[in-house]
Amino acid sequence: MGNYKALDGARPTWDRGDMADTRAVTEAESRQQFYDSLADHSMAPLWTSLHDLLPEEPRSQAVPHVWSYDIVRRKLLEAGDLVSARDAERRVLVLENPALAGRSRATERLYAGIQLVLPGEIAVPHRHSQAAIRFVIEGTGYTTVEGEQCRMSMGDLVLTPGGCPHDHGADGEDPLIWLDGLDIPIVEFMRATFFEALGDEPMPLTKPVNASAAAMGRARLNPPTIRGWDAAHSPLFLYPWTETIAALEALHASGQSTPTDGSILEYVNPVNGGPVLPTMACYAQLIPAGTRTDAHRHTPSAVYHVVQGEGTTVVDGRELSWSEKDTFVVPGWAVHEHVNESQQSAVLFSVTDEPVHRALGLYRERPAGQRRGG
Amino acid sequence: MGNYKALDGARPTWDRGDMADTRAVTEAESRQQFYDSLADHSMAPLWTSLHDLLPEEPRSQAVPHVWSYDIVRRKLLEAGDLVSARDAERRVLVLENPALAGRSRATERLYAGIQLVLPGEIAVPHRHSQAAIRFVIEGTGYTTVEGEQCRMSMGDLVLTPGGCPHDHGADGEDPLIWLDGLDIPIVEFMRATFFEALGDEPMPLTKPVNASAAAMGRARLNPPTIRGWDAAHSPLFLYPWTETIAALEALHASGQSTPTDGSILEYVNPVNGGPVLPTMACYAQLIPAGTRTDAHRHTPSAVYHVVQGEGTTVVDGRELSWSEKDTFVVPGWAVHEHVNESQQSAVLFSVTDEPVHRALGLYRERPAGQRRGG
Amino acid sequence: MGNYKALDGARPTWDRGDMADTRAVTEAESRQQFYDSLADHSMAPLWTSLHDLLPEEPRSQAVPHVWSYDIVRRKLLEAGDLVSARDAERRVLVLENPALAGRSRATERLYAGIQLVLPGEIAVPHRHSQAAIRFVIEGTGYTTVEGEQCRMSMGDLVLTPGGCPHDHGADGEDPLIWLDGLDIPIVEFMRATFFEALGDEPMPLTKPVNASAAAMGRARLNPPTIRGWDAAHSPLFLYPWTETIAALEALHASGQSTPTDGSILEYVNPVNGGPVLPTMACYAQLIPAGTRTDAHRHTPSAVYHVVQGEGTTVVDGRELSWSEKDTFVVPGWAVHEHVNESQQSAVLFSVTDEPVHRALGLYRERPAGQRRGG
Amino acid sequence: MGNYKALDGARPTWDRGDMADTRAVTEAESRQQFYDSLADHSMAPLWTSLHDLLPEEPRSQAVPHVWSYDIVRRKLLEAGDLVSARDAERRVLVLENPALAGRSRATERLYAGIQLVLPGEIAVPHRHSQAAIRFVIEGTGYTTVEGEQCRMSMGDLVLTPGGCPHDHGADGEDPLIWLDGLDIPIVEFMRATFFEALGDEPMPLTKPVNASAAAMGRARLNPPTIRGWDAAHSPLFLYPWTETIAALEALHASGQSTPTDGSILEYVNPVNGGPVLPTMACYAQLIPAGTRTDAHRHTPSAVYHVVQGEGTTVVDGRELSWSEKDTFVVPGWAVHEHVNESQQSAVLFSVTDEPVHRALGLYRERPAGQRRGG
Repeated sequence: MGNYKALDGARPTWDRGDMADTRAVTEAESRQQFYDSLADHSMAPLWTSLHDLLPEEPRSQAVPHVWSYDIVRRKLLEAGDLVSARDAERRVLVLENPALAGRSRATERLYAGIQLVLPGEIAVPHRHSQAAIRFVIEGTGYTTVEGEQCRMSMGDLVLTPGGCPHDHGADGEDPLIWLDGLDIPIVEFMRATFFEALGDEPMPLTKPVNASAAAMGRARLNPPTIRGWDAAHSPLFLYPWTETIAALEALHASGQSTPTDGSILEYVNPVNGGPVLPTMACYAQLIPAGTRTDAHRHTPSAVYHVVQGEGTTVVDGRELSWSEKDTFVVPGWAVHEHVNESQQSAVLFSVTDEPVHRALGLYRERPAGQRRGG
Repeated sequence: MGNYKALDGARPTWDRGDMADTRAVTEAESRQQFYDSLADHSMAPLWTSLHDLLPEEPRSQAVPHVWSYDIVRRKLLEAGDLVSARDAERRVLVLENPALAGRSRATERLYAGIQLVLPGEIAVPHRHSQAAIRFVIEGTGYTTVEGEQCRMSMGDLVLTPGGCPHDHGADGEDPLIWLDGLDIPIVEFMRATFFEALGDEPMPLTKPVNASAAAMGRARLNPPTIRGWDAAHSPLFLYPWTETIAALEALHASGQSTPTDGSILEYVNPVNGGPVLPTMACYAQLIPAGTRTDAHRHTPSAVYHVVQGEGTTVVDGRELSWSEKDTFVVPGWAVHEHVNESQQSAVLFSVTDEPVHRALGLYRERPAGQRRGG
Repeated sequence: MGNYKALDGARPTWDRGDMADTRAVTEAESRQQFYDSLADHSMAPLWTSLHDLLPEEPRSQAVPHVWSYDIVRRKLLEAGDLVSARDAERRVLVLENPALAGRSRATERLYAGIQLVLPGEIAVPHRHSQAAIRFVIEGTGYTTVEGEQCRMSMGDLVLTPGGCPHDHGADGEDPLIWLDGLDIPIVEFMRATFFEALGDEPMPLTKPVNASAAAMGRARLNPPTIRGWDAAHSPLFLYPWTETIAALEALHASGQSTPTDGSILEYVNPVNGGPVLPTMACYAQLIPAGTRTDAHRHTPSAVYHVVQGEGTTVVDGRELSWSEKDTFVVPGWAVHEHVNESQQSAVLFSVTDEPVHRALGLYRERPAGQRRGG
Repeated sequence: MGNYKALDGARPTWDRGDMADTRAVTEAESRQQFYDSLADHSMAPLWTSLHDLLPEEPRSQAVPHVWSYDIVRRKLLEAGDLVSARDAERRVLVLENPALAGRSRATERLYAGIQLVLPGEIAVPHRHSQAAIRFVIEGTGYTTVEGEQCRMSMGDLVLTPGGCPHDHGADGEDPLIWLDGLDIPIVEFMRATFFEALGDEPMPLTKPVNASAAAMGRARLNPPTIRGWDAAHSPLFLYPWTETIAALEALHASGQSTPTDGSILEYVNPVNGGPVLPTMACYAQLIPAGTRTDAHRHTPSAVYHVVQGEGTTVVDGRELSWSEKDTFVVPGWAVHEHVNESQQSAVLFSVTDEPVHRALGLYRERPAGQRRGG
């Protein structure tokens, strides 16, 4: 690639070897004919597609969008009626980006869904190379991951990392509803999808309930037994909301905030301080009452869930108004800012594909309005 | 996800809150109606697409294919005639996978092209977030990367990592032809593509010619000045073929080989022993005369270039016969084995997307015939 | 090194070059004469010291020892009387290993002291390449590290990493007493000790009080601003006891314990999950009522402080009985087991030189009674 | 530590608890009495030793020194006569720093010796936790490490990392003489020394001769089989001089040099680009004819061996003149500069304890004459 030019205008000559069948043709007439001949040999000219292949800046296809929980919940419960227990394998509504309809994704790289488990239902164990995060919206129940039952209630984050056997169940009085975030589009792009059903019985519990949260869920202390952990994901499967909100409020009370995201914390892998999963990062952030953050943009895309409060996120000039339990997306490279004009703090959870950008050396972040550097 | 079932057959009840408009509908009649209503709200049922989203094993769309250099070279030189010096920005033939026609890629994740620079031509400087490897097929010339001119001749590997300014030129007597391997599809998928032209003049040389190869190109010694290098890519931009083939022959002479790949070596980043680029790895391998390797498969896809010798690679039962300077692709998860029935060693160069699989925890490898684990 | 022998008994001959002055001497008579001649040239025979240099197993010089807090506190307060405010720079009692008297160290590699700051006193700012941990025994006050005031009360762990400016003060009603653990012997061995006084005024506070604890002290969440932290030590300077004990009790309640250490947690660096300092690791552990741990040994040495409860640690056959606020040492490679025959849990804090053993590839651990492997 | 003072001059009071036996004593009379009472309880005042424990800058005990190879070789061969084959386990002359006589070390942290193996002699296999480097001065032979025989001749570097079984032999016509560099003082300080004899027979060869050098000794290519290597040391046991000197000359010819060390390269671990051993780093450097390097100092100490040429190293104002095959030491934190007033390049090999300084966060480097920062 690059803009070639002759050094001196004169056409160089050279030994063409066995090139007897190369015929002189005029450019105007012969290009298409030449292109056709290339296609016969599974080749194509770069020069007709170069600028599409290497645009100056990213062009996301996904658009900003907000899903109102009122609607999502109503539809979910309709699905609960519609889809019988026997078919309940499927009680998930996929949040499809309006610009990616039919493609089962919220952004180009993130799948998001809202899952309903009715009281008394269970999902039998299975595993897949896709990684998932589950963020509880309402109800109580559990996800069992690799023999550890993780109790779930509002605001808890549960990981089912790629390759880890898991099952779910709702053993409370009320429907259990959570946000699913998966890297399905990423794993699909990589052609690295593996799925395995693991029988019809609930997974045997081989560890204490909430074992990883008991060992690593609070304070900055690790069990020495975690040394040598070499999986790509966090060994902590449950991040209890009680701890998360306490940490977030402590940060806020301490006056520590960022210009673009209010007081923000990333859920991390206790082993190495990195993201919870190799493909997805999770954040909790508090936008104080009366705050407008600085607009910026970055290559990762994000799915946000409103845990508390209400506000507006302006994305590429479009206002997404949100309140408690709503979900919205900010596509990659979209300029965005958060606005909280209410009297109380707003708390957002989000899941992004940032770790992929960082691992591949592709992460870029820029304040709104700043011109580019390559 | 997962196969839900009621714990006891009895339908649980619960408080549905403000659910007055939920009407009982029969399953048969109402599903489509329900789906339509979901679409209005940018939602979709998971249960109609679940098995497509989570197949049991990867299904690559790309197919095995070999490009004969005879044809490629002839077409390239035709392009040299057809495309004038002024338009020479574009003197590349893209190797398009037959199953991905029109999509400018050799596999789902790798772009490959054959580039021609005629004697006396130069490409003016530019940079892009896409990373590239250049493997020289014939001719001599240079690529300048970040102010270091890297001399190029047959078999040399030159890196132009993402974000690094670079230009090219052919200052020998003959056409300079090389294989381009780029991560264009990956960067496109990530929506992280940035391109910048850097003027019309050749980049000033700020370092000695071949500086990085002189400092790090041979032996296992690093200049201490490289400490603290924190880029995602190798600081060594030129891997001279003289060193590569000597290393490969020493390995072979020492009797060290692998069941699936003969005697094989990976080009590495001197700073950390990792792949040369965060998105692509490069290998050189020697398949001894009279060898058939064990068949296996792995999630990464690969573009191979034949440096020396001839043979056959059997890919998912399809025989790709190749000889010197040919290029062929092995899609991800395709079972493949290399066969060299000739009297001389065959030497292959390859570029793969393996680092992405490893960074994301998605790498899997399996001997042919072995049944799966999740 | 190694036991050389002639291959065939016959003495080989060779060209001795310019060796005219080598005289034949009988072994018995001439060795000492030869050794003396070596000493003249700053050389020495290896064969007279080989077995001392390379013993089969470590031989620690340090011995197990316990310091009763009754005595320590009484002596400290005597020092408070004896040493005037003007001289108070020095209000520390060094815990000297009985076998290392006069060498200011608790084990060969760890310095331990008990420091007293009287109400109203301050220590003016300074910094040194030695790293320190401070574990509060009683009283209240603060340590300011790099502009962050860390509030101190019973059980809190405060770090003053190597090179970080810090000062201290007791602003409560009572004497502030803490355990100091420093790597003084290690830094002395490395000849890497640097000390700098930083004026007579308290360090200006440039961050919120307890800023790092507010940002990272609880839950598994990191502020994104911590990315790129490249110091060798933890950015978290204060590990509040409230969090530590809660984590320890959660682990214990969950039934998770180790055979050799009860329920044990390591204080970690939030950035990378590693030890808090490059030279020292800190642990909190709970020995349940009625427990005798399995005896084992490891190359690191440790200084223990009893936070709660009472018990006995048997070290190389010697019983160290301890109760609340006592301090004791377990030398490296000493076989040790903890015994708690009381009705309540005992809680121990400890600081060890383990990170050095691990960084240098020298860490070894072995159950008591097991014969060696190299 | 730190300079305490009362906030307001007035002496604070507080509850002294059970302090009845604290008697008022005058400072002048009672201090020694108090100190004696402390000693009875294995305690000591910090204030009498503080300034010795925390000096402003490192004070190395070791002094600069050069060992002339003429003398070393003569004494070695005398030892060859004196020490019979049966006792040949011990044919090493330890280079003792004149200021550390009797302590078997060249600097506070490095052991250096010159070892002689007479033609036909072998050393039977053994292993120890101490790591060693062997730099060949003359003769030919081998060291076998973990079943790989590494052929040795002039200038080759062979590693016998801590814990790796190894043996040696001289199978050429001439005496085999090499420089030993070991971390004996470091491992002794850590009380982590383990030694094991491994029988009377030479170690069986389980790998091809020079296997690691064949696989990793040249070019920047790694066998994929090395992935997952998790030892603390390099898997490359032999760094052939032919490669080293070629790399050094290429660097020099390319005009790449440093102000303080001429053209310098570090031998690295192929797996991670780090030092060859966790405790010791090795360098080769070329001081061009007519060069005086800039004076500087750093905390690590170094043992240098002159491979080629002659010159002078000025260390803390003392001139060490050296020529081919001499060995000299530069203590830690000593200001030093290299001077080559001859007509040919001088080439130095060196081994240092730098990795320990870096691992522990203690590395400091400073130009001569610069005042300190903490």
